[in-house]
Amino acid sequence: MAIDVPESSAGAKGKAPLIATTAAALGGYKKGIAIMDFILRICAMISALAASAAMGTSEETLPFFTQFFQFQASYDDLPTFSFFVIAMALVASYLVLSLPFSIVSIIRPHVAGPRLLLLILDTIALSLATAGGGAATAIVYLAHNGNANTNWLAICQQFGDFCQKASGAVVASFITAVILLFLVVMSGFALRRQ
Amino acid sequence: MAIDVPESSAGAKGKAPLIATTAAALGGYKKGIAIMDFILRICAMISALAASAAMGTSEETLPFFTQFFQFQASYDDLPTFSFFVIAMALVASYLVLSLPFSIVSIIRPHVAGPRLLLLILDTIALSLATAGGGAATAIVYLAHNGNANTNWLAICQQFGDFCQKASGAVVASFITAVILLFLVVMSGFALRRQ
Repeated sequence: MAIDVPESSAGAKGKAPLIATTAAALGGYKKGIAIMDFILRICAMISALAASAAMGTSEETLPFFTQFFQFQASYDDLPTFSFFVIAMALVASYLVLSLPFSIVSIIRPHVAGPRLLLLILDTIALSLATAGGGAATAIVYLAHNGNANTNWLAICQQFGDFCQKASGAVVASFITAVILLFLVVMSGFALRRQ
Repeated sequence: MAIDVPESSAGAKGKAPLIATTAAALGGYKKGIAIMDFILRICAMISALAASAAMGTSEETLPFFTQFFQFQASYDDLPTFSFFVIAMALVASYLVLSLPFSIVSIIRPHVAGPRLLLLILDTIALSLATAGGGAATAIVYLAHNGNANTNWLAICQQFGDFCQKASGAVVASFITAVILLFLVVMSGFALRRQ
């Protein structure tokens, strides 16, 4: 009996480091995801801000005018572009406010609460960014190409700079959406039970 | 020593049912989520199919015509509506193909693989549905209200039935998007380590 006890104790000692190593590796894997999440979140924030700012400052006044009318285009001439500016500003501010939660999941990679919260809110932000981007794309396409069937004429021949800025904003919104999609998927991997 | 052994064994027996009960409750919770997932998935599929079919069959020919021209509106007059039909059809077919994976996670609620796969693909389907819905909304809004600044006139006075059907399709696409959002969030809860 006296020999048995140290033996089982040795067995336990032999196994303990193995379990600890696995846990540490899993912790490292989750910590890696959390750090990546933080970096991508900042990128998404910058690109959402850029989209909102580019669209919000897009206006063009043509150099010629008549006695009664000056030709001018601004983002708030089109309700869809106004929605785009608001949606991307909301996404950008959400991403700023989510940074502390991202930091919490770097410090404590195993706590599921903040990660789950980020997953839910990221999904909503993704929907908002995609809806805004999709709607603005439809209008930018129409402004570039017009539509013969409905008699909607292209306006980009006249307002080239305006259209270019709006197109840039749309591209930035899609970059934001793709990054948010990665953030959601990464949250899924981090939540995975292993 | 002979008294100690049964005592510790009794302690182990006392604890074992408690752990088993927790695991069973957790299994039931995950199974509940999986069944809910399956039902919501079928609802989302029906609503995506309805959106695609409603938009795809929306056309209207006006009862009057000139010698050279007949007034007709169809979804493929507008590229955005064509994109909408394709996007919603893709979402609907993805949802059909995802049903077996949903069934697998009902049968084995603790296996993380299918759940993670569904989370990733649901997120992509959500983006597609929202982008299609957002783009179609922008065009439907334009068709209803027109835009004075760009001289795009409303066409819904002439093509009332066409517009109504397109609006219905847009509403169905948003229902799909909301259900997909719930599916993503529920997958997050099911993946949570507890």
